[in-house]
Amino acid sequence: MQSSFRDRDIISINDMTREEILYILEITDTMEPLLRRGSEILKGKLLVSLFYEASTRTRLSFESAMHRLGGDVLGFAESRTSSVQKGENLADTIRVVENYGDIIILRHPMEGAARLAAEFSSIPVVNAGSGAEEHPTQALLDLYTIQKELGRIDEVKIGMVGDLRYGRTVHSLAYGLANFDVDLHLIASESLKMRREVLEQIRDRITIKETERIQDILPELDVLYVTRLQKERYVDPSEYERVKGAYKITEESLRSAKDSLIIMHPLPRIDEISSDVDLTRHAKYFKQTQYGVLTRMAILSLIFNTIN
Amino acid sequence: MQSSFRDRDIISINDMTREEILYILEITDTMEPLLRRGSEILKGKLLVSLFYEASTRTRLSFESAMHRLGGDVLGFAESRTSSVQKGENLADTIRVVENYGDIIILRHPMEGAARLAAEFSSIPVVNAGSGAEEHPTQALLDLYTIQKELGRIDEVKIGMVGDLRYGRTVHSLAYGLANFDVDLHLIASESLKMRREVLEQIRDRITIKETERIQDILPELDVLYVTRLQKERYVDPSEYERVKGAYKITEESLRSAKDSLIIMHPLPRIDEISSDVDLTRHAKYFKQTQYGVLTRMAILSLIFNTIN
Amino acid sequence: MQSSFRDRDIISINDMTREEILYILEITDTMEPLLRRGSEILKGKLLVSLFYEASTRTRLSFESAMHRLGGDVLGFAESRTSSVQKGENLADTIRVVENYGDIIILRHPMEGAARLAAEFSSIPVVNAGSGAEEHPTQALLDLYTIQKELGRIDEVKIGMVGDLRYGRTVHSLAYGLANFDVDLHLIASESLKMRREVLEQIRDRITIKETERIQDILPELDVLYVTRLQKERYVDPSEYERVKGAYKITEESLRSAKDSLIIMHPLPRIDEISSDVDLTRHAKYFKQTQYGVLTRMAILSLIFNTIN
Repeated sequence: MQSSFRDRDIISINDMTREEILYILEITDTMEPLLRRGSEILKGKLLVSLFYEASTRTRLSFESAMHRLGGDVLGFAESRTSSVQKGENLADTIRVVENYGDIIILRHPMEGAARLAAEFSSIPVVNAGSGAEEHPTQALLDLYTIQKELGRIDEVKIGMVGDLRYGRTVHSLAYGLANFDVDLHLIASESLKMRREVLEQIRDRITIKETERIQDILPELDVLYVTRLQKERYVDPSEYERVKGAYKITEESLRSAKDSLIIMHPLPRIDEISSDVDLTRHAKYFKQTQYGVLTRMAILSLIFNTIN
Repeated sequence: MQSSFRDRDIISINDMTREEILYILEITDTMEPLLRRGSEILKGKLLVSLFYEASTRTRLSFESAMHRLGGDVLGFAESRTSSVQKGENLADTIRVVENYGDIIILRHPMEGAARLAAEFSSIPVVNAGSGAEEHPTQALLDLYTIQKELGRIDEVKIGMVGDLRYGRTVHSLAYGLANFDVDLHLIASESLKMRREVLEQIRDRITIKETERIQDILPELDVLYVTRLQKERYVDPSEYERVKGAYKITEESLRSAKDSLIIMHPLPRIDEISSDVDLTRHAKYFKQTQYGVLTRMAILSLIFNTIN
Repeated sequence: MQSSFRDRDIISINDMTREEILYILEITDTMEPLLRRGSEILKGKLLVSLFYEASTRTRLSFESAMHRLGGDVLGFAESRTSSVQKGENLADTIRVVENYGDIIILRHPMEGAARLAAEFSSIPVVNAGSGAEEHPTQALLDLYTIQKELGRIDEVKIGMVGDLRYGRTVHSLAYGLANFDVDLHLIASESLKMRREVLEQIRDRITIKETERIQDILPELDVLYVTRLQKERYVDPSEYERVKGAYKITEESLRSAKDSLIIMHPLPRIDEISSDVDLTRHAKYFKQTQYGVLTRMAILSLIFNTIN
């Protein structure tokens, strides 16, 4: 196992076995002292950060992880400032920038972009989000959060609420969860239900239930994973307002929840979770970002084979 | 005193006593050899640079200071590339990015933004300009420039000219100067006079005189602090042209000045100071930027408690 | 020779003698082990990267070179985020940023910008492209590619095809080649022929032939240097389509070429070279970017005098 991530691309959570996922989480657990004390295990290594979409959070999380391990970073934060402006295709960009560093972190709006990049690149490529399907490091940090906060991933009941149709984080997390013995409750209005193609891939591996009403299932949940509703997805603004109201998480709405319920969110949130929830024991969405740095430190360490 | 800045937020110059200001200036004096030889006192430390407004100068000055001390930097240079685009509020952003580094440098267009950030952040926040009121590190570097160039701050006569209404540097500097025994001459046209609320805070601590004509007071001044006139502040373009002409500093206009007069400017300038002044002994505005790096090195060193 | 580049500005390839160019190429040859193993010869040095035009490739290449030698980088990637927005002139910007680092890398749309910057700067300035004329480090990496791939620069036959009128890379390379015993074939449609002022500077030093048809000369060439045709240069869109078709390089079109022909391109390409050429032995355009990092490492090492 130890060396199976060496020089490996991280494109989809679906490329990983349960054992590999657990191994990454195990390594993540060893990262906290390195974060606290600082480390030089990636000294001299250069991370090339190619963000074709704005994503401050994910970009800074990777850059922080790289710096915490003693490495350096270069790149661009949006396509407008890049050669893309001049019409260069991704395959060419990759064959150029592979000469500038030791690993590529790629965020791209197109489905399949990261896989294509990995095919052309002679250095490892990590997918930091591509299209509506894949965001493997987010899935890993979400799994790490569950394990860390609940002590296990198997035998948890997880509700996902919000935009299950377009949100890549819920898709990647659903794929990841399919490796575990979980009950997955999908809570969404008709227009934002989880895509059929995602469901088909996981349906025979885990128990899935769909509902439109959050209160029906809330009392049973161990994890509530909330995502942003994007106004632009709705043709009818009044429908948006109705759904938003129905799914908004407040301290009040959590009365029926278990004491041990944890609430997660990939962030940024708009108003899916009211701020009075922030101070409850349930709120783990800011903690997730902390776990995100640790998870990415683990991934970088494994790819560069500095962990054994 | 030595440890009073440890882990402290730097939000407003009004939060500092005269003694604290003088202590920062004293530490600033010790930074030059570290700048010249390089230093590793902040090795392993990460500065998160959050610039919601473009400000190349201030951002690069902080980043340079951090690098000169051996630390590293990550962040964003404008809100457009950040989660702000997605509507995230500042409190959330802060609770995320505090996981990515060891100190936050924040530039924000809103009054009070830095104070709010500091309340939510578990790591120190340094205000790099917020609203029209506060730019404490600029005030400190301005005070350092005066002390370094004139050998004292007490007993100097300072004229401020230009946009005293909207310029945050003059407001912060006025607050800072209120700790010293100075004569402050405010030179501005009616529409750009110093705000009442600023005056009220300092009026009983230092001598303030207001005038519209620069030549009336120029011969007495030890310091002339010039700021940009922003065309968009004027409803009447001809009024803008008239004021601009009246306040433009040229070598010719300085004939009545003391030999020892120093001219300062927070930069960038447009044409408030003609380029023939650059080569005179009076011009200290480029020197200010050099002192700015030293001042910010001192501030970082103090917050991280690496100076004793 | 060894110290002639110490603290020197790199503004134009025309400022360099043949001996100096060859010396840089010689130093470039020694950079590969430093790239591979990492180096700290520029530890503590700060590169200020001022890109007033988007140019991911050149910017990242310099930043990679600096990091590979152990140095650090700060700067901006486009003028919009800089003080330029506020109307600051270049001379002022330079006199500010010289306080933030140890070397300035400048990309600017205006002819003469780099030379002006160098006059005002107290630290070395390297021109990373200014106006339509100068891109000296690109010329050096192109010369290095030729020497490395063909074993010599003298006695090669070089064809340049595409936009010879507006492309700064072909102008700078032509100036560089004028120091060697080469045959230069300029292949362009009437409207994109090499500028007279460029030709006049090199005409008496090397053999130049102009043609509109690539196939006339292709069989003789050792190097084919292809550049992008920019649609916006053409008033007549059908003329653009015609020229584009005539100059497009495909595997098919290379049948008459020498086995040893190398094809170069400053990149990004749009469709001047079809992707079936990428896998042929001729294709060296991605290799160029690798040589580019080595060349810039050599230049930085020489300016900081860390090579002897």
